[in-house]
Amino acid sequence: MSTQREHDRSFVRTFFTSPTAVKGENDSAKMIRSAAQLRGMRAPDVWVPDNEDATAPSMRDEGAENIVEVVAEHGAAFPGEIHPRIVWHRDSPGTRYRGFQHILEISDPEKGAIEHIDGFVVPEVGGIDDWKKADEFITIVENEHGLEEGSIAMSVIIESAAAELAMGDLREEMGKPDNNLERLFLLVDGEVDYTKDMRAITPTGGLPPWEELRHNTSRGASAAGLIAIDGPYDDIRDTEGYNERMTDNRAKGMIGIWSLTPGQVVEANTAPLPPVTGSWLINAAGEDVELDSEGSTQFYEGDRIELESTDNGYVLHIGSDKRELDEDELREELLNMTEYVPSMDDIVDSMEEFEAAKESGKGAISMTQTATIVIDSLEIEIEKDRMWDEATYQAAMTPISLFQDVYENRPDQHDDLAELYGEEVVERAMKVGE
Amino acid sequence: MSTQREHDRSFVRTFFTSPTAVKGENDSAKMIRSAAQLRGMRAPDVWVPDNEDATAPSMRDEGAENIVEVVAEHGAAFPGEIHPRIVWHRDSPGTRYRGFQHILEISDPEKGAIEHIDGFVVPEVGGIDDWKKADEFITIVENEHGLEEGSIAMSVIIESAAAELAMGDLREEMGKPDNNLERLFLLVDGEVDYTKDMRAITPTGGLPPWEELRHNTSRGASAAGLIAIDGPYDDIRDTEGYNERMTDNRAKGMIGIWSLTPGQVVEANTAPLPPVTGSWLINAAGEDVELDSEGSTQFYEGDRIELESTDNGYVLHIGSDKRELDEDELREELLNMTEYVPSMDDIVDSMEEFEAAKESGKGAISMTQTATIVIDSLEIEIEKDRMWDEATYQAAMTPISLFQDVYENRPDQHDDLAELYGEEVVERAMKVGE
Amino acid sequence: MSTQREHDRSFVRTFFTSPTAVKGENDSAKMIRSAAQLRGMRAPDVWVPDNEDATAPSMRDEGAENIVEVVAEHGAAFPGEIHPRIVWHRDSPGTRYRGFQHILEISDPEKGAIEHIDGFVVPEVGGIDDWKKADEFITIVENEHGLEEGSIAMSVIIESAAAELAMGDLREEMGKPDNNLERLFLLVDGEVDYTKDMRAITPTGGLPPWEELRHNTSRGASAAGLIAIDGPYDDIRDTEGYNERMTDNRAKGMIGIWSLTPGQVVEANTAPLPPVTGSWLINAAGEDVELDSEGSTQFYEGDRIELESTDNGYVLHIGSDKRELDEDELREELLNMTEYVPSMDDIVDSMEEFEAAKESGKGAISMTQTATIVIDSLEIEIEKDRMWDEATYQAAMTPISLFQDVYENRPDQHDDLAELYGEEVVERAMKVGE
Repeated sequence: MSTQREHDRSFVRTFFTSPTAVKGENDSAKMIRSAAQLRGMRAPDVWVPDNEDATAPSMRDEGAENIVEVVAEHGAAFPGEIHPRIVWHRDSPGTRYRGFQHILEISDPEKGAIEHIDGFVVPEVGGIDDWKKADEFITIVENEHGLEEGSIAMSVIIESAAAELAMGDLREEMGKPDNNLERLFLLVDGEVDYTKDMRAITPTGGLPPWEELRHNTSRGASAAGLIAIDGPYDDIRDTEGYNERMTDNRAKGMIGIWSLTPGQVVEANTAPLPPVTGSWLINAAGEDVELDSEGSTQFYEGDRIELESTDNGYVLHIGSDKRELDEDELREELLNMTEYVPSMDDIVDSMEEFEAAKESGKGAISMTQTATIVIDSLEIEIEKDRMWDEATYQAAMTPISLFQDVYENRPDQHDDLAELYGEEVVERAMKVGE
Repeated sequence: MSTQREHDRSFVRTFFTSPTAVKGENDSAKMIRSAAQLRGMRAPDVWVPDNEDATAPSMRDEGAENIVEVVAEHGAAFPGEIHPRIVWHRDSPGTRYRGFQHILEISDPEKGAIEHIDGFVVPEVGGIDDWKKADEFITIVENEHGLEEGSIAMSVIIESAAAELAMGDLREEMGKPDNNLERLFLLVDGEVDYTKDMRAITPTGGLPPWEELRHNTSRGASAAGLIAIDGPYDDIRDTEGYNERMTDNRAKGMIGIWSLTPGQVVEANTAPLPPVTGSWLINAAGEDVELDSEGSTQFYEGDRIELESTDNGYVLHIGSDKRELDEDELREELLNMTEYVPSMDDIVDSMEEFEAAKESGKGAISMTQTATIVIDSLEIEIEKDRMWDEATYQAAMTPISLFQDVYENRPDQHDDLAELYGEEVVERAMKVGE
Repeated sequence: MSTQREHDRSFVRTFFTSPTAVKGENDSAKMIRSAAQLRGMRAPDVWVPDNEDATAPSMRDEGAENIVEVVAEHGAAFPGEIHPRIVWHRDSPGTRYRGFQHILEISDPEKGAIEHIDGFVVPEVGGIDDWKKADEFITIVENEHGLEEGSIAMSVIIESAAAELAMGDLREEMGKPDNNLERLFLLVDGEVDYTKDMRAITPTGGLPPWEELRHNTSRGASAAGLIAIDGPYDDIRDTEGYNERMTDNRAKGMIGIWSLTPGQVVEANTAPLPPVTGSWLINAAGEDVELDSEGSTQFYEGDRIELESTDNGYVLHIGSDKRELDEDELREELLNMTEYVPSMDDIVDSMEEFEAAKESGKGAISMTQTATIVIDSLEIEIEKDRMWDEATYQAAMTPISLFQDVYENRPDQHDDLAELYGEEVVERAMKVGE
């Protein structure tokens, strides 16, 4: 038996939480009622009616009722998966029992919500035996309501050191006969409470980066066939920071992230997909800067790199460094300093070419990217070769598999994707790697 | 049962080692005799008469006798805890047996030291089964001397890869009936010997940063209800470097650090407590710079950021970047570039306000910080809002809990703390979060 | 029993792979035939005839035959160890069985290769139980061919999250009676396939740095008495990048690295040994810069640090910072800003001096390094003291042990090493630490 993801989705880009019951509103279910009607890029891959932290403790019984009502009405039409978060705490049996009661209530088939609910999100789990308690409650609920054992997914929030350690044991625990941990779906980091559990302190009160936690979550997901999701990014106006975080996460194998607003959902639904147009980066004294593109001409507009032509060739200034170079040396230097960020179209092109080459018996091909780099009005043509072999091809497959997973599972985003990439690119992207 | 710290102290800021026997002195116990008489900010939270690396191998039997003599005389009055370090090595049964003999000797109630000793520090441990050998020896010592089983704490130095891995198993091992590992107290990194065990090499011979080790130690402590301590910082004149290391550690949840001198003890006793005055940071081209404060006016004195006023507004230069902005855009930009580091007073204020708001039924409040930022003689007023909800409040609780733990356990520091913060702030800090 | 490395080599600098069978050549074994004849610095510590990724799937049966033929002929004279890589995959029983058949075939004593083969490299392993399957196949092969049980080493490529986690269990699994995992030798990271397994995505398609994986591999090796090796560095022309990666690895305790060409072998055989000449580093606004040396005079040629003399002393500019200093303060500042990178000769000197001091009863000595630093034509003499105690001595022992291991195991490199360091330094380096 190999490690495979057993759920419908292989990738989840977005995990969007909404308060289940808001005090002082005519309709306390207002927030989830509107979230349930999101569509297209504004609708998340996983929607989480949040009956825990986003909802006041005194409102949570009403919250559970609201979930039932809203999901029964809107669940069938909702384009993503639905995973309500219930209350739970490794240190509080009372909280755990209340969580159980909410799951039991929400899952009652007579109420009409459970057929649209894919699973539950369990926060504040501790060691693996605590995870098993939640799993067991869900098994009991399934049995009580005549639902198939294991049919309700379970996702957990990793917000304690004990839970971080538990992720190292999942692979071995998931096969054991006394549990149904195969129902596990998402491993979601919760950095705010994790910071509290670790008793970390920063001068400004901001969150530490928790590099190792994110690595361990991504690793735990990969080893057990689950999906890793990063925690909330609080500064909802800081789109640039949100995107930097997501880029950093993807380099760790963590494709998905929590979203707090439909605006963040749009960002996080889009960011992991390959870009529409390719771009060139130049390394300017330790920092990658994107060149300004006009067609295949790429302009460097910063002032950390300067170029002069002399009688014998060129002088290239990088920061405080200065080199005299002839034209070939300058070209070689620029080749080393630049990198190409391929577009979706580029990736699909290269994969198609490699597939054709493989068919004809070749194991590796060279792909070329050309550009005219302009620094201080001087133009230099460069040609970047990249060897594509089986490993390159397989690595490029990750963003394409993601795209295909999105396309198959989210018909409501077809129009947006076609508009973004063009019909033809979308069609080719769906065929590559078959 | 929840994961709780079972010892008197919930936090330990300082772990101060002293040689137990120095050759060629009239009084070989000179160093521990003077250390035992430290008081106030110069006295550590945990004092470690060091009968291992700080003491020559030939002096260690005399060292054990010195510990007994000095602690019997001065132990009752010492304001911190006392945890002698004995010899131990995962690869040497002879060393382990010698360590056992020293513990047995030092713990003899007739000698009058053990009643002031809180526990022992065991260096060079290996895998978890090696930790159990040390635990078992202490159990035997307790039994031989008629001391309560489990009453002597045990702290370990993590200076091998095997010990690093063992920290992942503590939580499960500590409850087992065949050991008394509940006596565990501190997990202390020992980077010098760890570097040797890992066979790491740096060009200058300096220590690698060992980011992952420190994370794993902090995580191990958090998961098992223990306290994490970083290893020694050798360059005792480099106060700035010592403080940078401590700031980095705190962001990992590692509040305490080894101190080699009373000067380092003062630094490390003070650094984790909230600052006396708040300050503003500005991000100047990738680097956080503290602004020079005069009242609520904050001056930027560097030259990476420049500001000019023009007929239409402002031009803001950041490094090689240049932007034309109107006043509102400039204010927005400065808001993004600045962060406020709250003082103890600020933190207590905010917590009190949030507690009052919660009492009156509100789940979140907005706290505002204003400042006049001056760059190149141009003044701009900014107003920074921060949402405080339950999570913010809980996160702010960590430094306050630390302060309260210090205040309760260290009456000898009351005067210093009152002088530092003022009586009134201290009093309010002791009441908040009750 | 202590954790010790049980194999002939305590260190492995280089892991060099060659395709076992190349299509369309007169001699399909051409590549391994030429690799088998490498000598001196161009010959790796571990040579890996690669019957997996480097060889086309259709050529692998022929590859196994080629290994037998070439190793039977050239194996006796090859100066490094020989560890062929066979096919394996945690998710494919067919691949595993084919790998078994290749091991069985290559190990047949009648074919004359196995006596020169030290072990096999198993790629794509999963959890620890998957490692045991490979171990069991090798045990069966040993039994079938009348070879001593455990005599064939096994190295694995870590290229899945499951394998990364398995490294945490090795120490405990290796002693169990139902396996022969003591045959384990190298833990080799395979970042390309690991990236795929973790589903990581970077904008340019380049590999993530995988800091945590490398730490965990080094730790796993250290805890179980094995040797850690980093994966391939694809850009074979980028010698500077390859060296930076190796420096970073060594600070993690990972001394060895994969080499794809004899040129990379030379770099990777040389880089971990102490340098021939010492050098000075100066920290120029956050970056370490090597000073230009002429004898004991060290010139700073950059422009981030400037120095002027004034009537009262000096003005030192570092980046945008500016300080007025008298001569003593300037010397103090430069002492803080500089670090010395010792040569092999320096390290041996210091160790000899410390050994002599220890013999005469001293526990610590001070070693002094002097230099004349020149900035903007102004000269300042500095004297850097470093305390050497047992811990410093032990830490310095790592590169010396490495050198001694190389010298003992690689007679074919004696001439190169003598030429590099001089006979006298080599001789003293072989004696120190005895």
